[in-house]
Amino acid sequence: MDTRRLREAFRFASDKMTKSSLFETSRLWLDVYGLEPGQAQKIHAHDASDKVYLVLEGRVVAHVGGEERELAAEEAVLAPAGVAHGVRNAGQERAALLVVTAPPFPK
Amino acid sequence: MDTRRLREAFRFASDKMTKSSLFETSRLWLDVYGLEPGQAQKIHAHDASDKVYLVLEGRVVAHVGGEERELAAEEAVLAPAGVAHGVRNAGQERAALLVVTAPPFPK
Repeated sequence: MDTRRLREAFRFASDKMTKSSLFETSRLWLDVYGLEPGQAQKIHAHDASDKVYLVLEGRVVAHVGGEERELAAEEAVLAPAGVAHGVRNAGQERAALLVVTAPPFPK
Repeated sequence: MDTRRLREAFRFASDKMTKSSLFETSRLWLDVYGLEPGQAQKIHAHDASDKVYLVLEGRVVAHVGGEERELAAEEAVLAPAGVAHGVRNAGQERAALLVVTAPPFPK
């Protein structure tokens, strides 16, 4: 049985945001992002994949379609396909996110 | 911006397990299941959708492909398309799960 412990996927690096895969199938990706204060995922879009960011720890500023909102732990936001999105850690504490992407896109 | 608070989707009912939708798109479903002690999702399979169960609170026994394992908070399991799966709350406390399904299937 293919199980994972969420916290074991928490990783942080001084040079840039990290992404750790929890599950990667042909139908979905489930990742954990780790952002030190000041780190960000630059704003980008996927033509045919929806994404959900769910804050696990800390706070991030989420950007979706030109709008920005600060999200705390247990808050989630949808970035629909084709809509520009990104996150940044504007706080003083580490931030960890659960990120669902479906369907996967070519890396 | 389409945001949700995870805990606002926690629901429990005395008669059966609950499902609350956080996000429902043409590409993914993100749901919260609430299981009182003794409640279960019966074992079933989806031909062409992958599912991930992530325990948010409490403990559940997950069944995937004939195997069973108890999962605690922050533990996740993948139920790939075509593989029989289900969960049950065999404990004394309420259990809440985050459930990712992709792609959606006809209800």
